[in-house]
Amino acid sequence: MAGAVTQSGVVVQKIERADKQVIAALGACGVATVHEAQGRKGLLASYMRPIYSGARIAGSAVTISAPPGDNWMVHVAIEQVQAGDMLVLAPTSPCEDGYFGDLLATSMQARGGIGLVIDAGVRDVRDLTEMGFPVWSKAVFAQGTVKETLGSVNVPVVCANQLVNPGDIIVADDDGVCVVRREEAEAVLEKARAREAAEEDKRKRLAAGELGLDIYNMRGRLAEKGLKYV
Amino acid sequence: MAGAVTQSGVVVQKIERADKQVIAALGACGVATVHEAQGRKGLLASYMRPIYSGARIAGSAVTISAPPGDNWMVHVAIEQVQAGDMLVLAPTSPCEDGYFGDLLATSMQARGGIGLVIDAGVRDVRDLTEMGFPVWSKAVFAQGTVKETLGSVNVPVVCANQLVNPGDIIVADDDGVCVVRREEAEAVLEKARAREAAEEDKRKRLAAGELGLDIYNMRGRLAEKGLKYV
Amino acid sequence: MAGAVTQSGVVVQKIERADKQVIAALGACGVATVHEAQGRKGLLASYMRPIYSGARIAGSAVTISAPPGDNWMVHVAIEQVQAGDMLVLAPTSPCEDGYFGDLLATSMQARGGIGLVIDAGVRDVRDLTEMGFPVWSKAVFAQGTVKETLGSVNVPVVCANQLVNPGDIIVADDDGVCVVRREEAEAVLEKARAREAAEEDKRKRLAAGELGLDIYNMRGRLAEKGLKYV
Amino acid sequence: MAGAVTQSGVVVQKIERADKQVIAALGACGVATVHEAQGRKGLLASYMRPIYSGARIAGSAVTISAPPGDNWMVHVAIEQVQAGDMLVLAPTSPCEDGYFGDLLATSMQARGGIGLVIDAGVRDVRDLTEMGFPVWSKAVFAQGTVKETLGSVNVPVVCANQLVNPGDIIVADDDGVCVVRREEAEAVLEKARAREAAEEDKRKRLAAGELGLDIYNMRGRLAEKGLKYV
Amino acid sequence: MAGAVTQSGVVVQKIERADKQVIAALGACGVATVHEAQGRKGLLASYMRPIYSGARIAGSAVTISAPPGDNWMVHVAIEQVQAGDMLVLAPTSPCEDGYFGDLLATSMQARGGIGLVIDAGVRDVRDLTEMGFPVWSKAVFAQGTVKETLGSVNVPVVCANQLVNPGDIIVADDDGVCVVRREEAEAVLEKARAREAAEEDKRKRLAAGELGLDIYNMRGRLAEKGLKYV
Amino acid sequence: MAGAVTQSGVVVQKIERADKQVIAALGACGVATVHEAQGRKGLLASYMRPIYSGARIAGSAVTISAPPGDNWMVHVAIEQVQAGDMLVLAPTSPCEDGYFGDLLATSMQARGGIGLVIDAGVRDVRDLTEMGFPVWSKAVFAQGTVKETLGSVNVPVVCANQLVNPGDIIVADDDGVCVVRREEAEAVLEKARAREAAEEDKRKRLAAGELGLDIYNMRGRLAEKGLKYV
Repeated sequence: MAGAVTQSGVVVQKIERADKQVIAALGACGVATVHEAQGRKGLLASYMRPIYSGARIAGSAVTISAPPGDNWMVHVAIEQVQAGDMLVLAPTSPCEDGYFGDLLATSMQARGGIGLVIDAGVRDVRDLTEMGFPVWSKAVFAQGTVKETLGSVNVPVVCANQLVNPGDIIVADDDGVCVVRREEAEAVLEKARAREAAEEDKRKRLAAGELGLDIYNMRGRLAEKGLKYV
Repeated sequence: MAGAVTQSGVVVQKIERADKQVIAALGACGVATVHEAQGRKGLLASYMRPIYSGARIAGSAVTISAPPGDNWMVHVAIEQVQAGDMLVLAPTSPCEDGYFGDLLATSMQARGGIGLVIDAGVRDVRDLTEMGFPVWSKAVFAQGTVKETLGSVNVPVVCANQLVNPGDIIVADDDGVCVVRREEAEAVLEKARAREAAEEDKRKRLAAGELGLDIYNMRGRLAEKGLKYV
Repeated sequence: MAGAVTQSGVVVQKIERADKQVIAALGACGVATVHEAQGRKGLLASYMRPIYSGARIAGSAVTISAPPGDNWMVHVAIEQVQAGDMLVLAPTSPCEDGYFGDLLATSMQARGGIGLVIDAGVRDVRDLTEMGFPVWSKAVFAQGTVKETLGSVNVPVVCANQLVNPGDIIVADDDGVCVVRREEAEAVLEKARAREAAEEDKRKRLAAGELGLDIYNMRGRLAEKGLKYV
Repeated sequence: MAGAVTQSGVVVQKIERADKQVIAALGACGVATVHEAQGRKGLLASYMRPIYSGARIAGSAVTISAPPGDNWMVHVAIEQVQAGDMLVLAPTSPCEDGYFGDLLATSMQARGGIGLVIDAGVRDVRDLTEMGFPVWSKAVFAQGTVKETLGSVNVPVVCANQLVNPGDIIVADDDGVCVVRREEAEAVLEKARAREAAEEDKRKRLAAGELGLDIYNMRGRLAEKGLKYV
Repeated sequence: MAGAVTQSGVVVQKIERADKQVIAALGACGVATVHEAQGRKGLLASYMRPIYSGARIAGSAVTISAPPGDNWMVHVAIEQVQAGDMLVLAPTSPCEDGYFGDLLATSMQARGGIGLVIDAGVRDVRDLTEMGFPVWSKAVFAQGTVKETLGSVNVPVVCANQLVNPGDIIVADDDGVCVVRREEAEAVLEKARAREAAEEDKRKRLAAGELGLDIYNMRGRLAEKGLKYV
Repeated sequence: MAGAVTQSGVVVQKIERADKQVIAALGACGVATVHEAQGRKGLLASYMRPIYSGARIAGSAVTISAPPGDNWMVHVAIEQVQAGDMLVLAPTSPCEDGYFGDLLATSMQARGGIGLVIDAGVRDVRDLTEMGFPVWSKAVFAQGTVKETLGSVNVPVVCANQLVNPGDIIVADDDGVCVVRREEAEAVLEKARAREAAEEDKRKRLAAGELGLDIYNMRGRLAEKGLKYV
């Protein structure tokens, strides 16, 4: 659940986007690594699940604040989509209706859009899976929506408990969804890569049978806290 | 959750079924299309999920009103099953016990039964998947049930928030489950096919890059409602 | 949710384990059969779901009672793991943070550990799937944890509503998770095998079209309870 | 959650109602007794809770099938309300918006309406409490609604998992909500009174220290089932 | 949800109880204090809520492991109740049916029983409130139960995620429910009293305007961890 | 659930607050009116419920971003509290532990703090009720917390799905919680008062028996949309 942070009825047409190579590199790192690299912030609620396994992408957020059960603004938003963008939809009150299906995905793909994050429902998931159009949603639900009430496009929204600004980077995979501030993208990428490198070394040592207790030097501090082996 | 609409302890042996070709054609249309075609009614709650992806079927409902944690009536119901039927089980109070497993599925398949919709739990899902017997359920749970208290078979039930009459058509796929009144089946099918045809044209135009804003003539009404582009 | 049954800050190093062949045989029977064979007890809550389909295993429980959002004790526990063991983690208050990811799984596999049951969250599920390291969890969530507060290892815990003692046998598959008391393992296995044999016969009769109503002699008792066919 | 059983856009102006004295008498019996008296059917889901404690009423149902987040039909329905009626609102897809507040309650009271049962949200609960206008709802939520899309009034609806026909009797108290078919009202009342009389005798015997085990003659059957005292 | 830890069909007639004065004193301390005093264990899940505000009691647990939707064992258990006892009911699979109402409460009070903790539903809550019989439950639900299947009385159960042994002390108030092991009761009481005394002093200092930062000497450690004031 | 929008480990000491009379006047209007007056934004999730009925307040937000199960920052935040402030706590991952009890409330009251909004748990609710210290929380839960990990104070947080900046106005009553941007406070108040005045007139007309259908001139538009009276 969520809601626009500002007033409704507005479409912001020009938004800043991060560098495409930075975005792609963040996507390759994946949600868990990026989340850690930026100080454990930006993670959307765990109920946001992918409609199929195996997708790992990142894109620039085109945000939608939409009334419950009204997908009018999705059509408006798609016009604002550029290659590599992802839609991020937050209803203004909790809703699990199916705002999005295969026709809208067709339109997204025609414009270079690569995915959807929606704090509500999605439908036609078999078609979406066949099309290779990944969606992270709160629900799969065929319930239709109306086109009666305005929302906004490209305003800050709260989606599944995280603030998402238009142009922020969305990283999504089987672990869920993480948002990275556009202006922090490069710094986060640098830390994510450092983290990956450090992990690689640890992975080898752990695979060889060394214990985390030793690799991370935990035994002393555990004893200090009073851990007793019996 | 749900419950029989009438008294318990009754098995209705003769129910009307819709035409088999109509049923098959509705199944081919899928849940989202059928739900739309009948005026957006009949959709079961979104917590009804398939135990495996990819099944898309339709069948005539043989309904079961069962006490919580008691699957006796499933055995009674299977005798009433004909080729192409689906079981629809609604417990009389909320329950997620595993009313149904591979033995009952074997019996169903032997009689030509093609699937189960259950507002409770199911078990042996690995076997059911291997058998190709699809189930849409509220839970996967191995908890066993007893055979102590009567329910009813082929009475109207409320299953996952929808009224289902015996002989109604159940359409189910990865999007969930939708019920179609038996007497409305042909009319719904006609509308579903019209909808599919209309969608096919729109899909092509969207794939070619046209916008929904233009295809559906939305710009005027959006402006009228006060949408501002900034 | 759960919690240690005893005090925190303790690591029990020596636990009894059941016979490896008995454990393997229980695993082959699967959750539903084992649950029935032991008198329908031991089933963990239905929200404990596998991160991927198709795994069916059994192992000896190395238990962890951990503070919410603190995975320090996982490192401590892995040192206690022997070939064929599974970790069973219960937080002391409800939590869905990602206590466990691919590095810890690497360490587990290096020591012969075969799986994880966690009444909380897990992350890196794509990697875990590729590694063939099965996890049954309450949530998939990338949220990181800290290493600040002690818990205990190899004490009795309540995990997803079931008491699990260190050394108890954990059986897990697509139906969920079941715990078998170590001292009852052989007796349960015997009953599980008897059950499987009995089911095999019934499966054949059901597949041949016989009804459960007849195989189980239900008609008389149903009539006695007052079931009416109309 | 729920939905109209028939098409939307219809207001049925003339509905049959049960006898007022029968309704009042059912209300005096309360939910638990009426639910039992009619064979344990008709109980709405347990998430339907009163906004304040102590109300115990019964009335004739004026039903509303409403789109999610759209309370237009409430205004339409109030015109159909007669003295002693209760509104029963079921959204066509799950929603917890605040469809109803103190102004609508004022209007209801002016027309003799006595309460609301809503499978969605309500607001102004402090005012409603002061006015003595009881509501049983799924949520308390101030979220506003729109007036854009038609629903129906006085058609059968499924509300919180129960079918409610216009003119059915709604009984509601601190235990929740129960629906009684209009045509069964008198028969149910008779059984409810018989039940109350029988309970009165048992209450006295239990208060005097007799055990249910003896009053209900349970000891023999328990022994037969194998209960062991150790 | 929960379940017996041992087999069903058993009634243990003789259980050890803690000293009555110790129990009363633990009740006076309340849930939060007792939970802290025993090292933060024993707290039942937060969904266990009182049916009315203001009750604060403690009693010896007479435990019930009951099948879902079957309250037969409640009758059996009441015979085992002595003055000052509380019933603790855990269904063997999740259930919210109304196992308990005013007649059973009358019987409990006649035998000196003082309350109920039930990981399921309760009904007649208006009557129970008037009688001053407190209940902590997962749900309020009028749904009736049957008397068909055995459970057990006075065996260890897992209730709302905590192991409860017969004779353990149950402390319950507006904060929820906490279980204290019988054999630890006196030690816990001593710590609880020490805690209360220490809190009394702190309460005065805080009321006088001193800050926790100073009373607990936190400033140094906060600075050490890197807290920055800007 | 929620999380800081910026980094952790920071305490912002100087925040802007709205005019005290404006805040008080917003509080008098209540949640539903304020929510409407500001264009239906700012409403926290419906699971945020008051621990007792009847409180209606407004205050300036002192925000806390806290790790799950760690209430250290509450102590830090209280030092920043001025007369008329409310604490708003958002954990960085979902948690229902009891961060706050009567001692902290005592400290709050000593500094003029008037309430707490917490997307987690609270305890000592009986004491808090007696003290007249209102809390809106996700859970009541006695589970204790630790003081090990830093968070931040007076940074923007997402609390129960709404962005809250330090110094924003929190309005809370039996309907829930609404946040008003500090810089919009006066404009919102003006609209809220206009709304109240308009409602007063409507209330009188509705109480006199006029229908909303007529007062709001709905009949024409309903007919236009196709509503049929039968």
